[in-house]
Amino acid sequence: MEMACTLNCSGKNSSLLRIPASWGKYAWSIGRDDPRRAIHALKAGTALTLVSLLYILEPFFKGIGKNAMWAVMTVVVVLEFTAGATICKGLNRGLGTVLAGSLAFLIELVAVRSGRVFRACFVGAAVFVIGFAATYLRFFPKIKKNYDYGVVIFLLTFNLITVSSFRQEDVVPLARDRLSTIAIGCVICLFMSLLVLPNWSGEDLHNSTVRKFEGLAASIQACVDEYFREQNKDDDDLDRQEARASIHTGYRAVLDSKSSDESLAHYASWEPRHSMHCYSYPWQKYVKLGSVLRHFAYTVAALHGCLESEIQTPPSVRSLFRDPCTRVAREVAKVLQELAVSIRSHRRCAPDVLSDHLHEALQDLNSAIKSQPRLFLGSKHARSANNRMLMELNSAKNTMTSRTTLHSFKTDTTSLLEQKNTRTDQPAERNERPTLRPTLSKIAITSLEFSQALPFAAFASLLVEMVVRLELVIEEVKNLEGAANFREFNGNDHLVIDLTSKEKTRNRNGDPLHPVSPAAE
Amino acid sequence: MEMACTLNCSGKNSSLLRIPASWGKYAWSIGRDDPRRAIHALKAGTALTLVSLLYILEPFFKGIGKNAMWAVMTVVVVLEFTAGATICKGLNRGLGTVLAGSLAFLIELVAVRSGRVFRACFVGAAVFVIGFAATYLRFFPKIKKNYDYGVVIFLLTFNLITVSSFRQEDVVPLARDRLSTIAIGCVICLFMSLLVLPNWSGEDLHNSTVRKFEGLAASIQACVDEYFREQNKDDDDLDRQEARASIHTGYRAVLDSKSSDESLAHYASWEPRHSMHCYSYPWQKYVKLGSVLRHFAYTVAALHGCLESEIQTPPSVRSLFRDPCTRVAREVAKVLQELAVSIRSHRRCAPDVLSDHLHEALQDLNSAIKSQPRLFLGSKHARSANNRMLMELNSAKNTMTSRTTLHSFKTDTTSLLEQKNTRTDQPAERNERPTLRPTLSKIAITSLEFSQALPFAAFASLLVEMVVRLELVIEEVKNLEGAANFREFNGNDHLVIDLTSKEKTRNRNGDPLHPVSPAAE
Repeated sequence: MEMACTLNCSGKNSSLLRIPASWGKYAWSIGRDDPRRAIHALKAGTALTLVSLLYILEPFFKGIGKNAMWAVMTVVVVLEFTAGATICKGLNRGLGTVLAGSLAFLIELVAVRSGRVFRACFVGAAVFVIGFAATYLRFFPKIKKNYDYGVVIFLLTFNLITVSSFRQEDVVPLARDRLSTIAIGCVICLFMSLLVLPNWSGEDLHNSTVRKFEGLAASIQACVDEYFREQNKDDDDLDRQEARASIHTGYRAVLDSKSSDESLAHYASWEPRHSMHCYSYPWQKYVKLGSVLRHFAYTVAALHGCLESEIQTPPSVRSLFRDPCTRVAREVAKVLQELAVSIRSHRRCAPDVLSDHLHEALQDLNSAIKSQPRLFLGSKHARSANNRMLMELNSAKNTMTSRTTLHSFKTDTTSLLEQKNTRTDQPAERNERPTLRPTLSKIAITSLEFSQALPFAAFASLLVEMVVRLELVIEEVKNLEGAANFREFNGNDHLVIDLTSKEKTRNRNGDPLHPVSPAAE
Repeated sequence: MEMACTLNCSGKNSSLLRIPASWGKYAWSIGRDDPRRAIHALKAGTALTLVSLLYILEPFFKGIGKNAMWAVMTVVVVLEFTAGATICKGLNRGLGTVLAGSLAFLIELVAVRSGRVFRACFVGAAVFVIGFAATYLRFFPKIKKNYDYGVVIFLLTFNLITVSSFRQEDVVPLARDRLSTIAIGCVICLFMSLLVLPNWSGEDLHNSTVRKFEGLAASIQACVDEYFREQNKDDDDLDRQEARASIHTGYRAVLDSKSSDESLAHYASWEPRHSMHCYSYPWQKYVKLGSVLRHFAYTVAALHGCLESEIQTPPSVRSLFRDPCTRVAREVAKVLQELAVSIRSHRRCAPDVLSDHLHEALQDLNSAIKSQPRLFLGSKHARSANNRMLMELNSAKNTMTSRTTLHSFKTDTTSLLEQKNTRTDQPAERNERPTLRPTLSKIAITSLEFSQALPFAAFASLLVEMVVRLELVIEEVKNLEGAANFREFNGNDHLVIDLTSKEKTRNRNGDPLHPVSPAAE
């Protein structure tokens, strides 16, 4: 009944159970999505056949005997998809067995001279106490994370040997056989896992990090395009549905990546590939970068929220800001794409990855916003407040030059914006007044009420916030690059990223970093 | 060396390894955080001792013999923290064993009459093919989710029996013994898990859902308080740090809940407690509710982002909107608290849980925002645009009465706001013009620039968006209530929620739903 319930619950794919043909198709698609799966299954089959030979072939059987079963069991449970996971499980299994064997041997030393009844009580008590302690230990977060399987095997082996010792005088051969067969099983697993077409957790983590950057870039691009798309075209409704779905998949993968990142990094830390280079590869930096990316993705999610919100700024108002907003979004997406490419090729990103183009785009957005509300015009106080702010910022800058690059960079950005604002403001006071008339009439037409513009303000503010968080991402990428000894950035390594065709080509001629593709314009 | 590396990586708690006393303290804290852990460890110890008796006590040993070891192994690997997980693992183990036994028996039938060499090849081929197929099967998402452990046990048992059959004529006793000892182990596990102080995954899921609501409420409250806190008090810096940390923990728990929710719901679906009531309890609705709550929490995260952002609206401007904003936040938090209380007590929430107070607070916020920019004043066009919008909304309302409650509710809210606005606007045209002078001067002082107010606009917009998403949450809570047959809402069940003291007391006198606590005012 429970089964039936679960099968029903699994719902969506229940049609699979009906037709074997669709099963076959489905199975094929699983392998096509990631051919390493089929390879791993072949490796598992081979490893099992190899270990079975221990039992089938006469010479092996004479040496090992029936205990060859432990080797078979070890292969079944230890061989995992990635090398790191296999090593982790194998070492846990070995360690657990050794520790349990030693402890059981100690207990045996105490119990060996006592009478039958005392011995039974002693064994029972030992099983209870060790059972309690080991189970309790599994709740410790560090143990749970790294040695959970080891503790289970410890408990298993300890009980096996201790209880066996009750009926069998000498348990040392039992312990020795168990250990040696487990070792044989582990060796076969490690051979298959490390030497035959290995899958590295570290590589998976690296690639998934690159994909996250690409997904976020695509999301932001699609989100802003969608926000400023004209509403009246209802012929491409399906197209629009698809665009909206693509926004979601891009950042959703980042938001949901926490547990998979952590387990991949955990397994990667067991992998020998990089440890052989005499330094431990900073997998935890990938986890940290993942968490900063999630922090960034919250803004993308909020941006998407603006799109889906019931309360919308009228399209006529939105369209006023289309150009600066799409420019900011495109520049952010471009930076993300560049980071993706540089991480993929284990290369440091350009020092000017956060380019002037992005600053210019931000400034344009800022002035586009400022140019709109009439409120701003002729407000002397506003301008003096602006000046005050700038002065404060500058003095703050002077006193804080010893701060981190990140912070000073931010201050720079802000003050840059402010300076730009002041620069555009101050001439306005002197000679731009006559030219303001046409803008005024434009405002009268659009009637940009504050409360009506509120949702757009949120959208714009989130875009700006995104740029700020992008700096945090870049900072974290640089941390990773430093810790992982990525090769130095080569000035000729500049990339031409064509966002529309998703095609990445290297530009060896040292052309400017951001040649804008015509379609993205 | 790998070990050392991992221990180093685990870093933070390495001091634990130094002093045994701190180990003891740490172990104690693990149990104090959740006493069920200690109880579970005691249960595990007891189960292991019980199963060891099969080997130690003479009568049992005569019946079962050395195969009692399988029972010990079963207890070690099957007994899990919650009843659902134990049942799931136990059934998987049983099912895997039965299927593998049957398949091995079929293969035995084919192989039994053949010669030694053919038999060896046949066994080897069977091991390879089944090993490949079973490993490949584990990549199927549905199988991975529900039957992963079962497939491992299937593979284990199949190999065990098939390979054994090569050296042993009759494998039926082997298969039978393995099955019966595994059954004994499972029975002991189920007994300990279901009948002795059981921990239910379903209960955990239910409680974690309630805690999520409470955490979000606390986060929102703390976030808005922090946003409008005066900057000049630098004496309570530690206090502020703490307040900021509390914001984070509240919504973070919701954002990171996906995988734990899913596994709890999965295990809960195996638990018999509710299935006995002749309907399967809608655990998947909890997962759905969790995902809607995450969607809600993205807004809270973005709100928190406004707080942490480098670009801030000056406190003087912010303080103008303190009252309406804190009111909206308080009302949202109150609704969340109410939902938490009603879910906790398996009771339907009040039909008017989204109260008039919240609408009023929203309207106040709206008018506070509208009252600020000079832009709004005297803009005839703005007012006519407003009227146009209202007319459109009304006509839309008339044509869409057949829509869902949710949608019509939203439309109502919007039109309510609009109506309110129009009501306050129209008299202004006639007789409020003279009284506008003082407001004007106030605006001159605060100089609410659009671009300067941008971050605040985002903050306010996120608050409004939060209310919209709150409706989605309420909708999903109602879905859950319906599916889970929560008991009906009783008019006298209204709750007095004092947000400041976090104390919840029932008010049986039918007093108004939202008596505002003085401290929260």
